[in-house]
Amino acid sequence: MPISGFPEWLPPQRMIEQYVIDKIKTTFELYGYAPLETRAVEPLDQLLRKGETSKEVYLLRRLQSDADATDADDALGLHFDLTVPLARYVLENAGKLQFPFRRYQIQKVWRGERPQEGRYREFLQADVDVVDRDTLPFHYDTEMPLVIGDAFRSLPLSSPEGRPPATIQVNNRKVCEGFYRGLGLADTDQVLRTIDKLDKIGPEKVAALLVETAGATDAQAAACLELAAIAAPDGSFVDRVRALGVRDPLLDEGLAELVRVVETAAEHAPGLVVAELKIARGLDYYTGTVYETQLRGYERHGSICSGGRYDNLASSGTVRFPGVGISIGVSRLLGLLFGRDALAVSRSVPTCVVVALADEEHRGDADRIATRLRGRGIATEVSPTAAKFGKQIRYAERRGVPYVWFPGDPDTIKDIRSGEQVEADAGSWAPPLADRAPMITAN
Amino acid sequence: MPISGFPEWLPPQRMIEQYVIDKIKTTFELYGYAPLETRAVEPLDQLLRKGETSKEVYLLRRLQSDADATDADDALGLHFDLTVPLARYVLENAGKLQFPFRRYQIQKVWRGERPQEGRYREFLQADVDVVDRDTLPFHYDTEMPLVIGDAFRSLPLSSPEGRPPATIQVNNRKVCEGFYRGLGLADTDQVLRTIDKLDKIGPEKVAALLVETAGATDAQAAACLELAAIAAPDGSFVDRVRALGVRDPLLDEGLAELVRVVETAAEHAPGLVVAELKIARGLDYYTGTVYETQLRGYERHGSICSGGRYDNLASSGTVRFPGVGISIGVSRLLGLLFGRDALAVSRSVPTCVVVALADEEHRGDADRIATRLRGRGIATEVSPTAAKFGKQIRYAERRGVPYVWFPGDPDTIKDIRSGEQVEADAGSWAPPLADRAPMITAN
Repeated sequence: MPISGFPEWLPPQRMIEQYVIDKIKTTFELYGYAPLETRAVEPLDQLLRKGETSKEVYLLRRLQSDADATDADDALGLHFDLTVPLARYVLENAGKLQFPFRRYQIQKVWRGERPQEGRYREFLQADVDVVDRDTLPFHYDTEMPLVIGDAFRSLPLSSPEGRPPATIQVNNRKVCEGFYRGLGLADTDQVLRTIDKLDKIGPEKVAALLVETAGATDAQAAACLELAAIAAPDGSFVDRVRALGVRDPLLDEGLAELVRVVETAAEHAPGLVVAELKIARGLDYYTGTVYETQLRGYERHGSICSGGRYDNLASSGTVRFPGVGISIGVSRLLGLLFGRDALAVSRSVPTCVVVALADEEHRGDADRIATRLRGRGIATEVSPTAAKFGKQIRYAERRGVPYVWFPGDPDTIKDIRSGEQVEADAGSWAPPLADRAPMITAN
Repeated sequence: MPISGFPEWLPPQRMIEQYVIDKIKTTFELYGYAPLETRAVEPLDQLLRKGETSKEVYLLRRLQSDADATDADDALGLHFDLTVPLARYVLENAGKLQFPFRRYQIQKVWRGERPQEGRYREFLQADVDVVDRDTLPFHYDTEMPLVIGDAFRSLPLSSPEGRPPATIQVNNRKVCEGFYRGLGLADTDQVLRTIDKLDKIGPEKVAALLVETAGATDAQAAACLELAAIAAPDGSFVDRVRALGVRDPLLDEGLAELVRVVETAAEHAPGLVVAELKIARGLDYYTGTVYETQLRGYERHGSICSGGRYDNLASSGTVRFPGVGISIGVSRLLGLLFGRDALAVSRSVPTCVVVALADEEHRGDADRIATRLRGRGIATEVSPTAAKFGKQIRYAERRGVPYVWFPGDPDTIKDIRSGEQVEADAGSWAPPLADRAPMITAN
C-alpha cells in the first residue's frame, strides 16, 4: 500500500524530522528571516511560466466537476518548488511587504517525476530568500552560505576533525558567461548547459558536444573545460582563471563577486565554502551566484541544498524584484541519513513519565498526578490499564519512556533504566534536563 | 490573483499561526501523543471508502501523463481529513506500531467545496487520536476534552471571568440510538440524520420530517425533540432523560459513558464540557462519544473542533482497530480570530537587533557582531545599506524590531522605543526576556 515516491516515516523518524525542521527554523529566525507559507496550488500558467514542463506538474481536478482542469482558464496544479510561489506572492502582496523582504518557507512540494533513489514525488523543502525592489545589494549573496552553514552545524551530524558537516560549492554565472563570451563563444547558454553535463558524461564527450552544438573550436572547448576544472577553498581561483588569458568585463564582475562570497564564508567557518567553477545549476533562472551543497560522507548522492541569485524573480510593470535564495532538501537529507541509520532518538514517544495504576478505581488519582506533572511541563501518560505492574513497566519500556510513577503514600518514581526508585511529589519532582524531551543524537 | 478558498497569511499572521501550532503541539506532547505525518495523497478508492463523495475530493493527474487519473486503478486524490489516512497508516504499519497507538498530526487537508465564510478548500487541521487493537478502553474518551481544553487554555484567547475560552459539547450516539430504539423507532440512522438538522431548520420542520421519513408518530417525534433539548454542564442530564420514560440497554450504556466524560472534565476544568444531547455529527463514522466545540464569542460560526469514538476505524481480517479522536480546525480558528483582529504580534520579523552600519567598509565588523549575538540566541540582522542612521533606525522601526546596535568604541545599543542608548558588548549583552522573541497577545 505504500505509494512509490511518497515517503512516510514512523513516529520516531517523524520526531527526528521535527527536530531537524526545528533546528533549521531556529537558524533562519536567528538571521531575522520571517516565516511564510503559501497555498499548495498555483495556476497552471504560473507553474509553466518558465517553460518548466520538466518538473512534471501534478494537475488538480475536482471529482465532481465536469470541466477538465486542463481546459479551464483557472486550471490549478501543485507547486513543484517554493520559488515560483514566492515570486507570485511578492507581486500579489508588494504593497503590504517591507523590502528587502527576508522570508523562510518550510513546506512540501510535489513533482510527478519517475521515482528513483533519493528522488521523491512529495518532499519537504526549507527555503530562505531575500527579495528587494529594483536592486538587491550583493552582500545578501554572501549571507546564504553562512545561514546554511549554521543550519547544518546545528544538526547532530557527525563531522570528523570539527570540519563543517556540509560543503557549499559556489560559482557565479557571470564568471562562466563572461569567460565564454571573452573566448568568442556567442551561445553562452548552450555552453553552460553542456558544461552542466560534466559529471554525467565526462570531459571528452562534453568537449565533443561543445564543438558540435555550441560552435566551439577544439581550443575553445578545451578552455571551457579548463575553467570548469578550477576549484579552491579561497580567493586563489582568481589567478588560475586569469592565467587562462581570457578578458571580459562580465568575467571581472563575476570573479569579484565570487571572491566576496568565498572570503566571507572562509572567515565565518573555515572549510564551509569552495569555489567550484563547474557548478552551473542547469537551466534554472539564476543570473549570478549559484550554490550547491554536498553532505560530507554522502557526496555521491549529489546536492542536498541549492540556490542562487535571480535578478528577474518577478516584475510588475516597471518594477523589478531581484532575489537571492537557497533551499535545503529536507526529505532528501533525511532519506540519506535514515538510509544509513545515522540519527537516533532516545524514545519513540514524547512521554517522560507513565503513571502506574493499582486498579481502575484509582484512575482519577492517577489523572490528577498526571495533570500536575503536565502543568509543570513534564510529558505524562497514565497507564492504559490496571494490569500487573510488570506489564505496566513494560508498556513504558517498549516506548523508551524513562520513568514510571507509583501513586502511594508517599508516591514513588522509578527510573526503569537503572531500577532506582525514590520518593517523589508531583508538585516538585523534575527529571534531569536530558530526560525531559526525547534526545536526538548522531549514531 | 488570490484563489478563493485557499487562504494565505502575511508574515505577521504566519508568526501567530506558528505560535498557535506550537502551543497545540506542546499540549499534545505533554499528553504523550507522538507526532505523525502522512503523505498528502491517498488512493481514490480509500478516500471514497465511506461513500464520502460529499467531501469533494481533489483528483491528481500528471501533466505529462496520457492516462486520465479517474480511469487508472491507481488514481490518487488529496486527503480531505486526517482520519482516513490514519486508518490506512495503522493497517499498513500495524506490525511496527505500539498499541494503544497515541498520535497527533498537524497537516493541511483539501476539499473542493464551494468556498463560503469560514469554509476553505485548503486548511490546516490538528488531530489527536488513540487507536488500539481489538478493544480500546473507554477512559480515552474522557481524555479528549482534557487535551483540547488544555490546548485552548494555552492560547492567548480572551476569556471573561476565567472561564475556559472554548466549550466542548459532548453527546453519545448510544444515548440517541438507544433512546430511539426504546421509543420503538427502527430507522435510528434516519432519526439521527434528521435531528442533526435542528439548528438549520428548527424543531417544527424536524418533527414533520421525522413523521414523514422515519415513520415516527407525533408523540415519538416530540420525544425525540425533548431528548435533543436536554443540555447540562454536569450529570444532571441523566435524570432528565430518565424522566422521558424510555428504557433501553444501549441507552443505559450511553448515559453511563456520557456521565463519565462530563464528570471527568468538570473536575479538570469547570465549564469546559457540556452534555448537549442534540449533537449528532451528521453521517460520520462515530459509534459512541461525539464532540463539538464552540469558541466563546464565536458561537454562531459553528464548531471549531470536532471528533468522536469510532469502533470500526479500520480492520484487517479478524483484527479490528477501534479509535477515539478529535480535530482542531486551525485555519478555521485563525480565520475567525484574524477576522476580528483578536490576536496581535509585537513585531513583523523575528529580528531582535539590527546592527547599524557607518559605511560599507565596516560590514565585516557588523557581521562579526551579528554572529556573536546569534551565537547567543539573539536574532540579529545587519542593516541592508550604510544609509544615514535615521534611515537605518526606521528600517528597524517599520518592522517593530526593538533594538539597534551601533558599532563603535565602545559599542552601544539603543532601545528605539524608549530612545535609551547604553554601552554594550556583543559577548554579554542580552535583551529582556519579553523582547527575545516576538510576543503574541490577545488584542
